Amino acid sequence: MKVRNILGERFKERAFDIESQNLMTRGGYMKQVGNGIYSLFTPTKRIQNKIEAILREEMDAIDGQEVLFPVVMPATLWQSSGRFESIGKELLRFKDRSGADMVLGMTHEEAAVQLAMNVAGTYQKYPFMIYQIQTKFRDEPRARGGLIRVREFTMKDAYSFHTSQEDLEKYYERAYRAYERIYARAGVPEVIAVKSDSGMMGGKVSHEFMLLTDIGEDSIVICPECGFRANMEACEAITENSADAEMLPLEDVFTGDAKTIEEVGALLNITSKQTCKAVVYQRNSDDSYVLVFCRGDLEINETKLTNYIKSEIHPAVEIENADLTAGNIGPVGLSTKATVLFDRSLCGATNLVCGANKEEYHFKGFNPSRDLPEGTEFIDLTKAVEGGVCPNCGKHSLNIRRGIEVGNIFQLGKRYTESMGMTYDTETGERKNPIMGCYGIGVGRLIASVCESHHDDYGPIWPITIAPWQVEICALRANDEAVHAAADKLYNALLDAGVDVLYDDRSVSAGFMFSDADLLGAPVRVVISPKTLARGCFELSARDKSFGGDIAIEDAAQSVIDKIRELTDAINAKVPERL
Amino acid sequence: MKVRNILGERFKERAFDIESQNLMTRGGYMKQVGNGIYSLFTPTKRIQNKIEAILREEMDAIDGQEVLFPVVMPATLWQSSGRFESIGKELLRFKDRSGADMVLGMTHEEAAVQLAMNVAGTYQKYPFMIYQIQTKFRDEPRARGGLIRVREFTMKDAYSFHTSQEDLEKYYERAYRAYERIYARAGVPEVIAVKSDSGMMGGKVSHEFMLLTDIGEDSIVICPECGFRANMEACEAITENSADAEMLPLEDVFTGDAKTIEEVGALLNITSKQTCKAVVYQRNSDDSYVLVFCRGDLEINETKLTNYIKSEIHPAVEIENADLTAGNIGPVGLSTKATVLFDRSLCGATNLVCGANKEEYHFKGFNPSRDLPEGTEFIDLTKAVEGGVCPNCGKHSLNIRRGIEVGNIFQLGKRYTESMGMTYDTETGERKNPIMGCYGIGVGRLIASVCESHHDDYGPIWPITIAPWQVEICALRANDEAVHAAADKLYNALLDAGVDVLYDDRSVSAGFMFSDADLLGAPVRVVISPKTLARGCFELSARDKSFGGDIAIEDAAQSVIDKIRELTDAINAKVPERL
Repeated sequence: MKVRNILGERFKERAFDIESQNLMTRGGYMKQVGNGIYSLFTPTKRIQNKIEAILREEMDAIDGQEVLFPVVMPATLWQSSGRFESIGKELLRFKDRSGADMVLGMTHEEAAVQLAMNVAGTYQKYPFMIYQIQTKFRDEPRARGGLIRVREFTMKDAYSFHTSQEDLEKYYERAYRAYERIYARAGVPEVIAVKSDSGMMGGKVSHEFMLLTDIGEDSIVICPECGFRANMEACEAITENSADAEMLPLEDVFTGDAKTIEEVGALLNITSKQTCKAVVYQRNSDDSYVLVFCRGDLEINETKLTNYIKSEIHPAVEIENADLTAGNIGPVGLSTKATVLFDRSLCGATNLVCGANKEEYHFKGFNPSRDLPEGTEFIDLTKAVEGGVCPNCGKHSLNIRRGIEVGNIFQLGKRYTESMGMTYDTETGERKNPIMGCYGIGVGRLIASVCESHHDDYGPIWPITIAPWQVEICALRANDEAVHAAADKLYNALLDAGVDVLYDDRSVSAGFMFSDADLLGAPVRVVISPKTLARGCFELSARDKSFGGDIAIEDAAQSVIDKIRELTDAINAKVPERL
Repeated sequence: MKVRNILGERFKERAFDIESQNLMTRGGYMKQVGNGIYSLFTPTKRIQNKIEAILREEMDAIDGQEVLFPVVMPATLWQSSGRFESIGKELLRFKDRSGADMVLGMTHEEAAVQLAMNVAGTYQKYPFMIYQIQTKFRDEPRARGGLIRVREFTMKDAYSFHTSQEDLEKYYERAYRAYERIYARAGVPEVIAVKSDSGMMGGKVSHEFMLLTDIGEDSIVICPECGFRANMEACEAITENSADAEMLPLEDVFTGDAKTIEEVGALLNITSKQTCKAVVYQRNSDDSYVLVFCRGDLEINETKLTNYIKSEIHPAVEIENADLTAGNIGPVGLSTKATVLFDRSLCGATNLVCGANKEEYHFKGFNPSRDLPEGTEFIDLTKAVEGGVCPNCGKHSLNIRRGIEVGNIFQLGKRYTESMGMTYDTETGERKNPIMGCYGIGVGRLIASVCESHHDDYGPIWPITIAPWQVEICALRANDEAVHAAADKLYNALLDAGVDVLYDDRSVSAGFMFSDADLLGAPVRVVISPKTLARGCFELSARDKSFGGDIAIEDAAQSVIDKIRELTDAINAKVPERL
């Protein structure tokens, strides 16, 4: 393809703060159509097609059958699993012309069960896996970062069906490995798997595949000592309290206007670790209150809290009706209708400062083991912290990093087959519900993530395996007849060899041409100019500057092909074997 | 792939009247999820992937750039072209979580203009063509025939942009040829192009590509004499009247309860051709009446009527409020608020019978040239008829056939670029709106259409170029060790050679296995059994019975590959050259 023909404009002005969004906008990769809704120009679609080909190969290799589920589904299908009611506004609901309730597919567990329902009635059909690559719509309240978090996206989603947990686990390992292969083949072998919270998907064991980057939305907990990795949402928090020798008596202390942990700490000259803080939430369903006490230096992990109380929550907005003394709430002498919970961090702590449940006063000498009723339950409700204790190896080694989730795999269990009534007959004639796993990768987000981790100030540096074009020929002074002829010849030779080649033969300055080439991100570049011809050569260089030098004109096509192979081999060398 | 692993069940019972729907349901190709909404099992998805590959190759060959538009679009985009208001309920409208009006894409002219809008501001960027393969949703009131007419479907839609009508026409020819190539490559070179009505798309010149079949929804007018072809909707109707020697006087005749053309004709012993009939419609917008008079033997072409009055219409349901004498409506002495139109068939007709606008009476001797006001306009509002006059060559040669529309191409003109304000600067600095063309093919409908025209009583006969599997190995008595070993060896050899091979090694009867193979429709079949091994050979046969016989075991893989190449060559021989 010729650069002059690519639809889309490239420009220099910084457009956004997130670098992938900035460079992909500046490079003419996409255009916003609505909030979180994009059209993709041809460079992005070319990348997408290459990623889809990798996805198909890897899914087929783990015995996947490609199918296609609908984008628009009748609500009855989602009612049969109970999710039509349980999922929030991110599930877009509407009525069709006949007034029937419909939804836009944000995930396809129900559709997968519906498709398999009557055609897998005997154990002999198991296991099997079906997958699709299809458009999804999730009505995200906060679309951001270009293709990182959108409302409409292309996704590869796969669903496996099994007759035993062991069989699911065996398959889960294969899928896990397939995912490692997919990221490695797409040029991002640095993607790591972390344990995750299964959230609305149901099921117990799940992993997210994360690309670590400061602009990531997720917090990842990593132990460099033992290799433990978990999403913050799912990471057990282990806190240690060094007990004081002696429990001091509980006594009032005047704290006046000091309300926050910081204010009280400053006033009493103590660290936040020596306090007990109260955090108030409300249930989304009925705005009823949930009051959580934890050590003052920690933060509440809202995912754990949600899972524990089995109800979606939000930070309390109106505390006036809550029979609570805002800023002075404490666990002793508390009289409230709120659900009251205590975090594990309070267990074993001594001599804390906490609210006294009256204006302008706190308590000193709060000792949970003494001052809370016998049998008080301490629950894990806080976030792990940098330098905290690893739940796996027990060392004070935890690192907290940011990451973008570029895929996930779940052991769903019978969540959907039970609720939707899908059964099979076992060898002994029993009727059972199959056990499911599901496996997703968002294609657009993966593209943006690769850009996020593979770019320089001038543009994306696409890995050769997914680059929209593997090589770009820059013909400087293309109106020079010799240059144009030499460039045309190489272009045609590479086309004939099946290379994805981009050709810039515009009459523009070298600076302009290179700046466009940087934004288009072809990993290999050939420069042809009157100067190089005078030297009897072309210049071959890498977008990532890993190589660069003259090549002989007569061997140019072969040199380019060799270089492409070399780059491809380097990527494939990092791809683990299939299981 | 092994037959035992394909998800989906095959069965014998006739499921539907339309043969493609029947066979594709019986063969486990798809499953209904909702009205006009299907999930596709892997055989169909495999066909779809092959058709998509053909579509990409042919679109790329006419300089298309693949892009991706969203399924969900903000209503503002459709308001900018005026279609948010003008299109009926087939455009599905809904609100997102923020209350913003949204639509589901049923076509993407607006999205194409939005994508190109700010990146094609100068004449030097033209012409260009962008295309996508994406899911569409059209809220059809009457889904039918399996994948023939659905609400959700995968479509290839392309949009070209030009700076002159001549350039559009030149490109239109290339696209037309690309379409001929696509159908030929998909194994249906019998698809014909017919002139069509542009309908809601805007623009003037358009063609539909039609597969002729009795179950088609469209009526196609064909002249075998001169090759003229048009959709009935767009076909000019030419009627001839042989004038009587003498105009008889207009006089009342008592017809009592006789209301219809048939009843009146029977009573007065005349043919319907000797009558003038009245057909009453109402405008969808305000239910106001439109009254059309035409010769009694003809039918109103509602598309022409809609285009003429520029308003959607429906047959009148309530005629009581219409100041009309139902069953006795006539053009003479008529007093009505309805819009009154006269078809061309009345021009030159003599001595017709028509209603007298009073109960129980008709007129005899109605002579339009005498009895209608001077200057009465006669408009082409009826359907062409079998044996009618060809508008191209003038012979009484017209045939009316049924067809399925499997694609369409439109010269859109400036319909969208004007309304949406897309402009470019000409070489002389003028601002102009680009001229557009658009080009669509529904993938699922094409698959069903191929099945409709390529099947026998036992199943589809897929053309080798789009078959889900090119060859099926049937291992009869697969539990026989020698059979299984021989079949495995051939299976692996074909897999290694990159052949799409299906392998049935189930312990089922020959009848059962062949019946499944017929439904799966692989064009080439290899049968391996103890009997064939005893003869020292395998059996090679065609699904369409065009060949069959023994092949040597040692050359089996090569024989299969040769046969596949032969079948592929036969299809390619019918593909016209690119323009």
